Amino acid sequence: MSPGAVAAIAGTASLSFPAPLTKEDVLTRRAKGASPVNVRAFVSFVGAGPGDPELITLKALRRLREADVVVHDRLIPQALLAEAPAEAEIVDAGKTPGRPCMGQSQINWLLIDRARRRGRVVRLKGGDPAVFGRLAEEIDAVRAAGIDFEIVPGVTAATAAAARTGISLTTRGHASMLVLATGSDHTGRGVAALDWALLARAEATLVFYMPVQGLEAITTALTAMGRDERERALVVERAGTLDERVVAGRLGDIAARCREAGVASPAVLLVGATLDVASVPRAVRHMAATQA
Amino acid sequence: MSPGAVAAIAGTASLSFPAPLTKEDVLTRRAKGASPVNVRAFVSFVGAGPGDPELITLKALRRLREADVVVHDRLIPQALLAEAPAEAEIVDAGKTPGRPCMGQSQINWLLIDRARRRGRVVRLKGGDPAVFGRLAEEIDAVRAAGIDFEIVPGVTAATAAAARTGISLTTRGHASMLVLATGSDHTGRGVAALDWALLARAEATLVFYMPVQGLEAITTALTAMGRDERERALVVERAGTLDERVVAGRLGDIAARCREAGVASPAVLLVGATLDVASVPRAVRHMAATQA
Repeated sequence: MSPGAVAAIAGTASLSFPAPLTKEDVLTRRAKGASPVNVRAFVSFVGAGPGDPELITLKALRRLREADVVVHDRLIPQALLAEAPAEAEIVDAGKTPGRPCMGQSQINWLLIDRARRRGRVVRLKGGDPAVFGRLAEEIDAVRAAGIDFEIVPGVTAATAAAARTGISLTTRGHASMLVLATGSDHTGRGVAALDWALLARAEATLVFYMPVQGLEAITTALTAMGRDERERALVVERAGTLDERVVAGRLGDIAARCREAGVASPAVLLVGATLDVASVPRAVRHMAATQA
Repeated sequence: MSPGAVAAIAGTASLSFPAPLTKEDVLTRRAKGASPVNVRAFVSFVGAGPGDPELITLKALRRLREADVVVHDRLIPQALLAEAPAEAEIVDAGKTPGRPCMGQSQINWLLIDRARRRGRVVRLKGGDPAVFGRLAEEIDAVRAAGIDFEIVPGVTAATAAAARTGISLTTRGHASMLVLATGSDHTGRGVAALDWALLARAEATLVFYMPVQGLEAITTALTAMGRDERERALVVERAGTLDERVVAGRLGDIAARCREAGVASPAVLLVGATLDVASVPRAVRHMAATQA
């Protein structure tokens, strides 16, 4: 994408953005080394979308291309990192289970430190940063440091999974509500403390994020509290990527089916009446066949 | 955006898409008039994002630029229509209250007819098509006609509003669930039949779509069923656009505040503990001041 084309789109809507730094600004900063003056500290919390690199927004891509520093999670389309300027610092803050990783306080420090020293920091998160993205802690830290920030929303995993399975998450009459819930606790190994009675009786489409470790516990809790075990359930693994898989079943057997299939994170679990019409759209099936 | 740049992004992830028609294909079809042979009927249900034209995804923009026909809702960024090819047919299927408009069956017919006669139809909807986008009826019709389709997800209004007010919609401990609900019934004038007891007790962030006409009824129902009237509430009107407005209050007074401010559709209502830290990010305030 040429910067001109993006500007043209933004321009037709007369959008106003903070003026980007000029090449001279950047050269001046370079010449002055690691502690330049007149850097405008700014953190953009940016949604990278659900996995398909083409599902990033124009605004998110622009922020990435103007970044001085990119601090990214593990679950972002790796192809996007090539869009950052060659001289940008790229930091992987990914929390890979079982490996030493950056703690939340270290990430908070990094955002503040780099914004002050280098300027435009892009904090790149998978999906939408405001939905199970551990955004609140980082915003609190940046705000407390008096640093300007913005949030650039993204496509969240729930709607990406719906898109790939050809369904609407809401339907008039059947599903006037959509509930997004976390499928795992803060350790990533247990199940979150949720109001299972409420979830069991909600006339809503339910989407659980990060459900793989707790799939048996989630589905058992829902049926134990009264949700029909014959209700349709789908697990979409790596929605929109080349190695995407869809496992279809019922609330009563989806955990076993996923275990058999060896489904791994990242994935989402969908439950609800709207899934009755679910089918992978024919174009997607065709695409999968072509790739196979 | 040049097609090459998009292809480069898609290419790095080795994504495979249906081959686009060549110029020769198009010329052949033109020469043959209104009923060309060998048209591949295909409907893309595409999310246009929440209002800011830069919040469209690369994939959605690509579909728009390859469209033979665009059938769009009223609530889409109008600037995006200029991205369709000059020879594409543009149909406004918008449902403006009080004006004669296209019925759902007419829209369904149009999608099928145009796909068969012209080829690539983009059904452009505001936000994400699977979230209160009346997508199910249209998919059913297209599927029944045996026409291939796909869904291209978009940024939905809930996360766009969260982004503009600087909050996370979920926080560990406080809000492990996010509930999206429709704020209006199918007429657009009444309030949807929802499980208010459930909504009142949900330890979740609540987001109501299209709540403006029913704001008094929604907030009264929630507090009557036991939700704390002192809980934070925000209404975001036209999130991300030049004439965006944010009205902040409590569940008990947000309806009156919005009436005083003359808030109109489209808007979303947010309620929940995560809003306690809400503030329009400083960069956005700065932007608003610059624009004023």
